[in-house]
Amino acid sequence: MTAKIAFLGPKATFTDLAVSRLFPNDIKIPMNTIPDCLDAVRDGEVNHALVPIENALEGSVNITMDYLVHEVTLPMKGEVTIPIQQHYMVHPDHAYPGFKPDMVYSHSHAIAQCRKFLHNELRGIPYEYVTSTAAAAKMVMENPDINIAAIANDMAAEEYGLTITKQNIHDYEHNHTKFIVVSNSEVDYEGHLTVEGDKKTTLMIQLPADHSGQLHQVLSAFSWRKLNLSKIESRPMKTGLGNYFFIIDIEMSLDDVLIPGAISELEALGCTVSIMGSYTCFKVQTGVPQR
Amino acid sequence: MTAKIAFLGPKATFTDLAVSRLFPNDIKIPMNTIPDCLDAVRDGEVNHALVPIENALEGSVNITMDYLVHEVTLPMKGEVTIPIQQHYMVHPDHAYPGFKPDMVYSHSHAIAQCRKFLHNELRGIPYEYVTSTAAAAKMVMENPDINIAAIANDMAAEEYGLTITKQNIHDYEHNHTKFIVVSNSEVDYEGHLTVEGDKKTTLMIQLPADHSGQLHQVLSAFSWRKLNLSKIESRPMKTGLGNYFFIIDIEMSLDDVLIPGAISELEALGCTVSIMGSYTCFKVQTGVPQR
Repeated sequence: MTAKIAFLGPKATFTDLAVSRLFPNDIKIPMNTIPDCLDAVRDGEVNHALVPIENALEGSVNITMDYLVHEVTLPMKGEVTIPIQQHYMVHPDHAYPGFKPDMVYSHSHAIAQCRKFLHNELRGIPYEYVTSTAAAAKMVMENPDINIAAIANDMAAEEYGLTITKQNIHDYEHNHTKFIVVSNSEVDYEGHLTVEGDKKTTLMIQLPADHSGQLHQVLSAFSWRKLNLSKIESRPMKTGLGNYFFIIDIEMSLDDVLIPGAISELEALGCTVSIMGSYTCFKVQTGVPQR
Repeated sequence: MTAKIAFLGPKATFTDLAVSRLFPNDIKIPMNTIPDCLDAVRDGEVNHALVPIENALEGSVNITMDYLVHEVTLPMKGEVTIPIQQHYMVHPDHAYPGFKPDMVYSHSHAIAQCRKFLHNELRGIPYEYVTSTAAAAKMVMENPDINIAAIANDMAAEEYGLTITKQNIHDYEHNHTKFIVVSNSEVDYEGHLTVEGDKKTTLMIQLPADHSGQLHQVLSAFSWRKLNLSKIESRPMKTGLGNYFFIIDIEMSLDDVLIPGAISELEALGCTVSIMGSYTCFKVQTGVPQR
C-alpha cells in the first residue's frame, strides 16, 4: 500500500534525498517545519514523517528531539544516514571552463561546509545565504542572465536542470546527516534504495536531581549488562536552567531481558525513562540517486 | 583597552544581543560564518570571537565545536546564556489594533519556536523564511506599503524602527541560547551587562575504541572525585562512521588536583583528552538591552 510521508521541505534538499531513497514508491509531502511534520503524523494526515536528527543543514535537530519529548508522543521507527556531498553548479548556459560567477548562493551551513573549496577556487567571490540549498539551485535556474552559481546536492541539480561543474566540494569526506522516521503505524521499507544496517533503541532518561556521579550511576545500568551506547546527549528541559534530560542510543533492538532490566534499575534510582523507539538503521551509500 | 570582537552576523540577531551585553564597550565585527569568526581570532585580526554553542537560531552549534576540535586550537574563555524571547513586530504605520498581515517573515527556527502564537492568533496567514530574524525585521522596515510582519528580538525592532505589537510570543518560557567566547588572549569583561555565574571547564575526550562500558569507565574518573558534569555530548569524528568524541562540561574551574587527576586517569585508559577551556559563565537576564 502506498503511504504518505511528511518531510521538511522544500523539494530537492537533503531531507528530500533521504525520503526519496527510503520510500521510493510512496507519496512525499513537503512541509514547512519539523513540528508540522510530526503534528501531521499525530493527526493522521500522513502515515509517517521523516525529520532530521543529527547535523542537518536545514532545520534544527534540537527541535526534533525536543518536540518528541515535550509535545507529541510518537515512536521512532527508523533511521537513515546520508553522506553530506555538496556540489558546485551553474546554469547550463554558463557551463564552460573559466566561468567566474559574481556571486555564489547557498544555505549558510553548506557555505560553512565548503570553505576550503571557496577559499582555494573562488577566493574573493562573495556569497549570499538563502534558506536552503534547493532555494539556491532554483535561483540559479531562474536567472540565466546573471553570472551566479549555487552549492547544493545532486538532487537539486537534477530538479532545476543545472550543470555540476565541480563535484564533492565539501571539506570533510565522512561528514553525514541523519534522519529518523516517526510513525504511529507499521512502516514498510520495501523497495528502499539504501543499505540496511544495525538495530538501535533510543531512550530518554530524566535524572531525579542534579548531583555529581548520577550520570555515572545511570550508565552503570547499561555497562554491566554490556549494552553498547552509540550516542549520549544531554539537553536542557526548557522548564528552567539546570534541568537536563539525556538521550541515549543503545546498539540493539528492544529485547525482553536486558533493556527492560536496565530501565527497571533506572526507575528504582528515581529516573524517568521513556522508550523513544526501537528500529532499523539504513544508510544511503552515495548522494547520487539510483534510477 | 578596547577589543575587537568577531561575531556571527548580521546585526541585531541573538548573537549580536549576546556580544552587545557581554562587551558593551568594545568594537563588534559581524562575520558571515562561524569558521570566519574563529579564523579571525587565530589570524590575530580580532581579539576575541563570540559564537553559538547551544540552541542557536542562526548558525549550527555543531559547526562551532567541530571547528574547534578539527580545525583551530583556540581556548574557550567565557560563556553567555540568553533567554530566547521572540516578539511580533510590524511597521509603525501598521501598529493599530486589528492589523492583519498578508505574510509573516522570520528565520525558520524562530517560526518553529512560536507555533502556538501563530496557530492561535494568526491561523491561516502564510509565513516565509528568511536567513535571520534580523533580515525579517529589515524586510518589514523596507516595505511599509505592503501588509507584512516579522518575528524577531527587541534589538531588531529597535535597529529597524519597528513596533512590537505582541511581546514574548515564544512557546517555551525557559528556552535559552548559549554562546562561547573564544580567544588567544586575556578577556576583559569589565562593564558587562550580564549576571556573572558559575565557573566551568570543558573537556574533549576521545575513547580508544568503541566497546560497551567504556563511557561508563570514563565517567567514573569524574564520579569518584565528585566532579559534577553539566553537559555530555557525543559527536561523530568525521573520520568515518562509528568514531565518536565526547564533549563534557565540569561545573568548576580547572584546578591543580581534581581535574588534572581525572585527565591522567583517562589518559592511562588510552583516551585522548584536550582541555577546551576553563571559564566564567554569564547570564543575560532579559532580552531587553539596558541603555
